[in-house]
Amino acid sequence: MRAITELPSALSSKPRDFSLPNSSWGPEMMRLYERYNSQCEMETEGGEKQKGPWKRLPSYNRALKFATGGVYLSKIIQSKARLFTRNIRDPGAAFEYVLFVNSEEQKCVCIFQAGHLLEGPPGHVHGGAIATMIDTVTGTHATVLSGPVMTANLNINYRSPIPLGSTVLLESSLDKKEGRKTFISCKVTNTDGSKVHSETTALFLSINVSHLLLGG
Amino acid sequence: MRAITELPSALSSKPRDFSLPNSSWGPEMMRLYERYNSQCEMETEGGEKQKGPWKRLPSYNRALKFATGGVYLSKIIQSKARLFTRNIRDPGAAFEYVLFVNSEEQKCVCIFQAGHLLEGPPGHVHGGAIATMIDTVTGTHATVLSGPVMTANLNINYRSPIPLGSTVLLESSLDKKEGRKTFISCKVTNTDGSKVHSETTALFLSINVSHLLLGG
Repeated sequence: MRAITELPSALSSKPRDFSLPNSSWGPEMMRLYERYNSQCEMETEGGEKQKGPWKRLPSYNRALKFATGGVYLSKIIQSKARLFTRNIRDPGAAFEYVLFVNSEEQKCVCIFQAGHLLEGPPGHVHGGAIATMIDTVTGTHATVLSGPVMTANLNINYRSPIPLGSTVLLESSLDKKEGRKTFISCKVTNTDGSKVHSETTALFLSINVSHLLLGG
Repeated sequence: MRAITELPSALSSKPRDFSLPNSSWGPEMMRLYERYNSQCEMETEGGEKQKGPWKRLPSYNRALKFATGGVYLSKIIQSKARLFTRNIRDPGAAFEYVLFVNSEEQKCVCIFQAGHLLEGPPGHVHGGAIATMIDTVTGTHATVLSGPVMTANLNINYRSPIPLGSTVLLESSLDKKEGRKTFISCKVTNTDGSKVHSETTALFLSINVSHLLLGG
């Protein structure tokens, strides 16, 4: 029986949820977080749970959610691999972000605060860091809509540079589903929506996760 | 006179060139590095320099090359900002890469070894990390060809996933130049070219760097 209670610490201790506020989140990041978080599942005065239109998605720094048991599980637990967007632990230094999904409207939003380690052009966010957030948001959205997927195409139009340190909004919406294909659009704007930073169309293909785990 | 000799250490000490081999580079990375490096500028037996078709580009973790003096220079030196692709110092953990340019053929190649901190799908490189390398290689190539530019469009087709830890080749070539526009194509393959990982077209717009520095 001991063998069962002595699970590896990666499983028995609760992993950190990176999408909860930390001390590095600025006023703009907090304000937008509160806006969407207040529209998530709520408790009424009578103590009952009331469903809200939005749902906050937790975010970890490992691919644990794909661990389904046996050899793959142990391979993943032992691996040093870390999710690209969560590989720097210093709060506020790189990607600070939180995703909310709205199932009814088939929309997803992400509030993203860009840290000083994401520099591309002097004083501004690297185009690759922006692409990384776009892939993350549209890929997560496609997974919510269609199950496991891989990115097949990203077509990104960069409209205006994002200053390092700023908070921006990524809004993702479903265009259509066709067989294995899920088409998503994504817009990156400043927090009041008055300035467009980029516009993207993305295509995702549904996959069988076991192929990835076996195919290595 | 002291004031002049006591330059900030960021200027007086030579910054690390990240595109030189380190102990984390695997045999495949080293083999390809040697292939292109041996075709760079060489010294003949008589001690004369002989020009080769390729040129290795150095790579730093700060935007120092844009520092042209005065208030901007001091702003950049004091800044904590680091280049996105060079923000992790642990060798081999994230992006290990080196770029070579061939002016005559208007081509650029990048040898890229993907570390364990770049995970997206379990065991494979994040689509955003691939996009980051594509933006880096095509953007650097466009800068060599056209001077300072900003990314205007990246259209990336992902053909097959890249296993974490592997070394891949990025090949960038000029399609055309039209006024302020530079059109570049980029292919990512395995090291013998038998497997295509992604194909990209990219558009860059020539800019005046001072706008970025002033505009913040």
